[in-house]
Amino acid sequence: MKLIIREANTETDWLTGIWPIFREVVRAGDTYTFAPEIDEETARQQWMLPAPAGVFVAVKEDDGAIIGTSFVRANQPALGGHVANAAFMVAGDEAGHGVGRALAEHALEWARGANFSAMQFNFVVSTNVRAIALWKHLGFAIVGTIPEAFQHQGLGRKVDAFVMHRFL
Amino acid sequence: MKLIIREANTETDWLTGIWPIFREVVRAGDTYTFAPEIDEETARQQWMLPAPAGVFVAVKEDDGAIIGTSFVRANQPALGGHVANAAFMVAGDEAGHGVGRALAEHALEWARGANFSAMQFNFVVSTNVRAIALWKHLGFAIVGTIPEAFQHQGLGRKVDAFVMHRFL
Repeated sequence: MKLIIREANTETDWLTGIWPIFREVVRAGDTYTFAPEIDEETARQQWMLPAPAGVFVAVKEDDGAIIGTSFVRANQPALGGHVANAAFMVAGDEAGHGVGRALAEHALEWARGANFSAMQFNFVVSTNVRAIALWKHLGFAIVGTIPEAFQHQGLGRKVDAFVMHRFL
Repeated sequence: MKLIIREANTETDWLTGIWPIFREVVRAGDTYTFAPEIDEETARQQWMLPAPAGVFVAVKEDDGAIIGTSFVRANQPALGGHVANAAFMVAGDEAGHGVGRALAEHALEWARGANFSAMQFNFVVSTNVRAIALWKHLGFAIVGTIPEAFQHQGLGRKVDAFVMHRFL
């Protein structure tokens, strides 16, 4: 499968590509803190961040379908603004095909180009083992553990969240 | 010194009490990531959070002067919304007189009353030893360390930031 990763073009990409993925991922309640029944406008505000943040989509070259999305932004304002934050979502039926990895490698490169000196994930659900393995493979380390920070909807209990970090 | 801690009454408290403290604290560039020359409107948006967050002031009983401020909010949306986040600022000439401690004890009590089950600080500058000692005294533990996350304006280099946490 050939993938193109490009900047999201707000309205069309959101409605036909990103929002369906966002809704599906969040509804599962196993990776993000957003309300599983989040409404479209709230979701849009959380994901379609204005510049200087970057919002991206992964597009299948053959049929043009959006099958993943990411954003990269500063994790803190001015005096912490050299550390990037990023988030990723992949359509459920495309999981395991390298889409998340391609989005993450792109995000790291984009963050370097934007002069960030590190990237931090604030809330990686500890049971999301596939994502954690990928982040470690890409050079991230667990630098913190927030106990019982996530109300996991699949497991029916509170699970830990990790803070992960790498220099760029 | 007798202190009263009460909810902030947006306009008057902000302009005559909170904003002068905010500006002074942030200008030093040694504890918060906000731009040292932040403008009033941006600062107001960062601190004067709408309900269900709480914004508070510490007032000297004798002359009614505001000498400290805090806020308490959810650190994450829905599935992480049981963990509170809080921040504190004290007027420079009142430091060391127990104002920060009184604000923090109040914030913990308020968070318990609002049914939060834990409190997390996302970004405690590692060189802010007085604050760290106070948080530890109040039951917080360092659960994470973000390397070189803060551009310290006094020390002229990047210093680590801690994530701190306690159950309520």
